Amino acid sequence: MDLIARLRAGLPDEAILTDPDITGSYANDMASFCEAGTPAVVVLPRTVEQVQHIMRTATELRVPVVPQGARTGLSGAANASDGCLVLSLVKMDRIIEINPVDRIAVVEPGVINAVLSRAVNEHGLYYPPDPSSWEQCSIGGNIGTASGGLCCVKYGVTAEYVLGLDVVLADGRLLTTGRRTAKGVAGYDLTRLFVGSEGSLGIVVRAVLALKPEPPQQLALAAEFPSTAAACEAVCEIMARGHAPALLELMDRTSIRAVNAMAQMGLPDSTEALLLAAFDTPEPAADLAAVGALCTAAGATEVVPAETAAESDLLLQARRLTLTALERVKSATMIDDVCVPRSRLAEMLDGTAAIAEKYGLTIGVCAHAGDGNTHPTVCFDAADPDESRRARASFDDIMALGLQLGGTITGEHGVGVLKKEWLARELGPVGLELQRGIKDIFDPLGILNPGKLF
Amino acid sequence: MDLIARLRAGLPDEAILTDPDITGSYANDMASFCEAGTPAVVVLPRTVEQVQHIMRTATELRVPVVPQGARTGLSGAANASDGCLVLSLVKMDRIIEINPVDRIAVVEPGVINAVLSRAVNEHGLYYPPDPSSWEQCSIGGNIGTASGGLCCVKYGVTAEYVLGLDVVLADGRLLTTGRRTAKGVAGYDLTRLFVGSEGSLGIVVRAVLALKPEPPQQLALAAEFPSTAAACEAVCEIMARGHAPALLELMDRTSIRAVNAMAQMGLPDSTEALLLAAFDTPEPAADLAAVGALCTAAGATEVVPAETAAESDLLLQARRLTLTALERVKSATMIDDVCVPRSRLAEMLDGTAAIAEKYGLTIGVCAHAGDGNTHPTVCFDAADPDESRRARASFDDIMALGLQLGGTITGEHGVGVLKKEWLARELGPVGLELQRGIKDIFDPLGILNPGKLF
Repeated sequence: MDLIARLRAGLPDEAILTDPDITGSYANDMASFCEAGTPAVVVLPRTVEQVQHIMRTATELRVPVVPQGARTGLSGAANASDGCLVLSLVKMDRIIEINPVDRIAVVEPGVINAVLSRAVNEHGLYYPPDPSSWEQCSIGGNIGTASGGLCCVKYGVTAEYVLGLDVVLADGRLLTTGRRTAKGVAGYDLTRLFVGSEGSLGIVVRAVLALKPEPPQQLALAAEFPSTAAACEAVCEIMARGHAPALLELMDRTSIRAVNAMAQMGLPDSTEALLLAAFDTPEPAADLAAVGALCTAAGATEVVPAETAAESDLLLQARRLTLTALERVKSATMIDDVCVPRSRLAEMLDGTAAIAEKYGLTIGVCAHAGDGNTHPTVCFDAADPDESRRARASFDDIMALGLQLGGTITGEHGVGVLKKEWLARELGPVGLELQRGIKDIFDPLGILNPGKLF
Repeated sequence: MDLIARLRAGLPDEAILTDPDITGSYANDMASFCEAGTPAVVVLPRTVEQVQHIMRTATELRVPVVPQGARTGLSGAANASDGCLVLSLVKMDRIIEINPVDRIAVVEPGVINAVLSRAVNEHGLYYPPDPSSWEQCSIGGNIGTASGGLCCVKYGVTAEYVLGLDVVLADGRLLTTGRRTAKGVAGYDLTRLFVGSEGSLGIVVRAVLALKPEPPQQLALAAEFPSTAAACEAVCEIMARGHAPALLELMDRTSIRAVNAMAQMGLPDSTEALLLAAFDTPEPAADLAAVGALCTAAGATEVVPAETAAESDLLLQARRLTLTALERVKSATMIDDVCVPRSRLAEMLDGTAAIAEKYGLTIGVCAHAGDGNTHPTVCFDAADPDESRRARASFDDIMALGLQLGGTITGEHGVGVLKKEWLARELGPVGLELQRGIKDIFDPLGILNPGKLF
């Protein structure tokens, strides 16, 4: 009996897509420079039992399975391989429970981040993780890549909000990990092991998520600096003095100019770095005044604090437009995701500028500065083989620089296909061996998202 | 060559203890009802290289190794087994780095929790995890058991503060996990796997810890309730309304009376439950007023907000004395550590009272109420075999009740020897099989803390 016939035994017809014109549209996530193969079939289960049937079938027939959320990932972790079964979780999109006393939500993996955020807001609650793609990305994908966002400097990443999981294992068995309690230390933390595992250990079919009380409306400030070093000095001072900004973002000269060119934001061309800080504290104006003074002391030429939410939105708009603006510079972009200790941020930014010059490329950087998490975006002409080669080489130089500064090759985007050679360099041989050992425990046949991570 | 001679090849004489009168004093942690064997040797290394030598030796000779911190644990995880090598990390007690910009500390495992707390305070920083034993317990032990404390309701547990680890593996190789950056998602989260693993996967020899800015001085409130149900209703309301207390503790009638009997605290004997809340916010008085009003609405007969730090300390003293007071009720105590969703806290407390009645025992409960984490403390006469049997049986009933209410058998004390049969019940066969698989990857010879956890 072949794969499709087996699948049909436990799935309705509409859950199985085999038309190559349609299945082909499931081949990629949003990463550049990552190969993708042609899936044999795409399945869209709606229940845990259906996922179990799919995995039992895949195990029996030794078919590789590529789990997918909303395919907004930036590392190729959701890319299809030739002949694989694409397991899309987008139809499992129910919010099962929102509990204000226990401050938890129980959700299926296909729930869109923004849908959950709005739903919990109605109960006075807050689900902090806010990837830029939050209107499109799914909670399952967020868990798979351990996504971050702008809020992380105050609220941490997705991993810190996952309390428990239901996971369908490679062989179709159902595993429940973790808890719905505030605390719990019974056994090894398997929940955390699945977060960021990019679909390589099992299929997350349900998650218990921690929620926070909804904070007050945030108020932002923008500060213009004559050098990235001065802006980074301000970042270090802000964090060393114990401030708790809800976001602390930095745009470099290239990003500022790209946004100016696209949207006439009126930022002076002499600005070498723009720092954006926001507070969702009870007295945000007082926090902005203190942080504004630190910016001025660090050399800011202009500090503009918002007085209303509308003014805050306007200030943050430049940051939101950055990637779109950089995408207009050349025909293609490659976005990197190197995170360094925030005390090394200035070196990371200066080093990235030197790499851009070395390769004769435009590289714009926006950064979650408070976290030391930079997103250098290499702009290049994909039709020009030499420029493409230089773009790829600069990307490697940027990761090498990040590691040299005591950082990591990925702060929040994950490894996928894009960075798997670099993962081995970051982990070293002992770490890599243990990670492979864990993979083998959960997926002895190697059918779960093969070719990713390692 | 025998074990001691091999050890001497890489350790100074004073690091090797073999006198049975001395080594015997390393046999136990502070758990009741847990067997302990006689160690063959106790070693007290001061360097990573010495730990590597010890583990290489243990691997060559297949000697079981029991890692120990300050032995303040409450589950027997640090208890010796017959013929084992006790590996005490207490001499590795250096604070290597405190970095206010990156908000991290780098420490060796033997650093005492309170010593680290005071050291980071001097830099305006805060290391939140605060087990009751914080003046004695070590960071390595805190990591091994994923310890909690009073602050967890606002600041979370030890696990949330461990960014990266250096670990000596069973065979002596050195593994570095995690990062010193604010974010990072490169590969599976091995750091988190070690936290709470009770020395069963490797020997933590260095940790990178996240720090917070030091919060304002906290201010507390005490509220007396005519029933535990009313106190639990107040807890649910406080948390559902979005308050962020820095502690939210509950004492039941038995605990209150024990403290009264010991310290003449003057709490009215009609009080069935005492709730203590504290805030370290910029305006604690306003928060206390709001929470006091919620307590009154839930039926509190008396609400006493502190106006100064000294008054706060006085209010919290009753809670601090609880365990000591309960230890005076009978010759022995067994402290449990069941955590339930906070919405089920009233059922847990009423159920525990029913279990005390069923077995004719005194069981006092203090609880980290905001976390739903209860510490039922069974008071019994250890010289009375029947009462001891009933104490043990009630302990099991309490864990069964916790699981039935959607909770966990351990919120913060760990599994050790005490709860290993119960761990299997909480995890289920699939979870247990995977956990054993992970153990085998890290410790194929089974020499690391055998007989614990599983």
